[in-house]
Amino acid sequence: MPELRQNLITRDWVIIATERAKRPRDFTRPADGGAARPAYREDCPFCPGNEHLCTPEIFRLDGPGGWKARIVPNKFPALSPDGERERRADGIFRSVTGVGVHEVIIETPRHDMHPALLPLDGLADLLGVYKRRYAEIRADKRMEAVIIFKNHGAAAGTSLEHPHSQVAATPVVPFQFRSRLEEAIRYFDDTGECVFCRTLREELSDGARIVFETEHFAAFIPYAALSPFHIWIFPRRHAASYDEITEEETADLALNLKTVLAKLYHGLNNPDYNYSVRSIPTHYHYTDFFHWYLTVIPRVNKAAGFEMGSGMFINPALPEKSAEFLRGAAAD
Amino acid sequence: MPELRQNLITRDWVIIATERAKRPRDFTRPADGGAARPAYREDCPFCPGNEHLCTPEIFRLDGPGGWKARIVPNKFPALSPDGERERRADGIFRSVTGVGVHEVIIETPRHDMHPALLPLDGLADLLGVYKRRYAEIRADKRMEAVIIFKNHGAAAGTSLEHPHSQVAATPVVPFQFRSRLEEAIRYFDDTGECVFCRTLREELSDGARIVFETEHFAAFIPYAALSPFHIWIFPRRHAASYDEITEEETADLALNLKTVLAKLYHGLNNPDYNYSVRSIPTHYHYTDFFHWYLTVIPRVNKAAGFEMGSGMFINPALPEKSAEFLRGAAAD
Repeated sequence: MPELRQNLITRDWVIIATERAKRPRDFTRPADGGAARPAYREDCPFCPGNEHLCTPEIFRLDGPGGWKARIVPNKFPALSPDGERERRADGIFRSVTGVGVHEVIIETPRHDMHPALLPLDGLADLLGVYKRRYAEIRADKRMEAVIIFKNHGAAAGTSLEHPHSQVAATPVVPFQFRSRLEEAIRYFDDTGECVFCRTLREELSDGARIVFETEHFAAFIPYAALSPFHIWIFPRRHAASYDEITEEETADLALNLKTVLAKLYHGLNNPDYNYSVRSIPTHYHYTDFFHWYLTVIPRVNKAAGFEMGSGMFINPALPEKSAEFLRGAAAD
Repeated sequence: MPELRQNLITRDWVIIATERAKRPRDFTRPADGGAARPAYREDCPFCPGNEHLCTPEIFRLDGPGGWKARIVPNKFPALSPDGERERRADGIFRSVTGVGVHEVIIETPRHDMHPALLPLDGLADLLGVYKRRYAEIRADKRMEAVIIFKNHGAAAGTSLEHPHSQVAATPVVPFQFRSRLEEAIRYFDDTGECVFCRTLREELSDGARIVFETEHFAAFIPYAALSPFHIWIFPRRHAASYDEITEEETADLALNLKTVLAKLYHGLNNPDYNYSVRSIPTHYHYTDFFHWYLTVIPRVNKAAGFEMGSGMFINPALPEKSAEFLRGAAAD
């Protein structure tokens, strides 16, 4: 019989559809030869030497003979960094000016690089750039939420090959963030404990859904994962905001994330995926009830009318089996 | 400057990205000749004469020389109709047995039919079948939410060509439903009015986002639509549950829905889409604060890392422009 599971943190129910269950290998991407890319492309605005094709640089991390990473404004920004944050309420129609941040982080000079294959210190550098920019943006009081994310592959919403991440900041708290904050506060009221710390403790003690552990982080497939191979990477130390990460933790997160991405790369043949840093809205500070984390979502199945009509998901893979598969997958 | 808008009913914020704004025609599906399908296929389990290829029939609407519509269990059901609804809480791990409904509604004997082109009385029949099955399922107290939906085209999650809808029922209230109920109750507390009735009144009075009006229904693109051409069809008469629809209203909804789907078909060249009936959880009855409606979501753009990481959407089309375009699109 199928089973529905509830995520303690999000309160989302998910249908674990055992009748339509697929084996982990069924999600493997067919070999399509798409991996062969040149190390440099003349027409790529993110390749070294083509900096003039980009919007003006915001930040550069210097590297041997050039740069290791760069931040530039998104050429087609969804939000604008200039102007005031102004709320309007015209009867029931509520709006706020679209002041915010929308930038691109060029992860490496190499056009053909994959984050799963990036040297460990390169990934640590990138996570450090995330932190630096996160902290800078959060100092701007017009911003209420900073979202760092990556789209890898067409199914994940990117059309540009050159490895890049994005950072966005919004002048309001997204409703989903607010809803989850309220749930986290309620849990803290009821138990005196952070719901994320509790979840991590239980997942570590259970073990069945753990993918990979490092000194400061644990990667696992949540008990009520919304889709196959949906992975959460939690810091072991309680911290609400991404910019609280230490240098030692950053190096350790690089190892954890690289291993997770490499397991997806080798185990599922380079699937398209999104990852994002989930952090507390920026007007909060050092709260006991919220905990930042990183989420990785391989785009191996599709939301259809049931999901659109209910906000609920059907997961055709058993989280325990997916985790077991990834534990066994090669990491390099 | 871009603008963020908040939906009064869902509380979702959406970024209306004017900098990356596209014209309505930019969402038109390229001509791909995919529309040519035979009226009958020997290997299609939903075509007449192939009933033995299906799971045993649950309901049949008789028609001249055969049937007009049929309901059969989904061959790969996400939920099972047998068994008891049992909640379990093993520490923080909460689950419920996967008892529920997952059925397919075969909309017409014709393999090559499109809902936008279905005769009006055929669509009214189908909406009547929805109502009948909705009422039957809701009498089963193990079910807490009934979700009727349709996936049209590959991007909307279907692989079967023959026109069909689906009905699912879940043994829990999806979290998104509960969250919206709570918002609706709060609005009713604050104003003494149904938030859906209020929204409909304001949209009709404003007029800029109206797509099509009939005697009993109004179709509009919400002020804070999450994606281009996202359409809500509201009944003018307050009613919380879909099975409260009258026969006269059913015929009128058929006209409204057919016109909306035909405008999408002709205006955007047969885009993939999902629609679903949004109705109150079944353990409620005749409430003043909630209002059923139908939502139509053309799958013309893709959720990426920003959406995954924030639950917030970027809409690259101005709702007023999209509505204007659809008002002018041919309906037959």
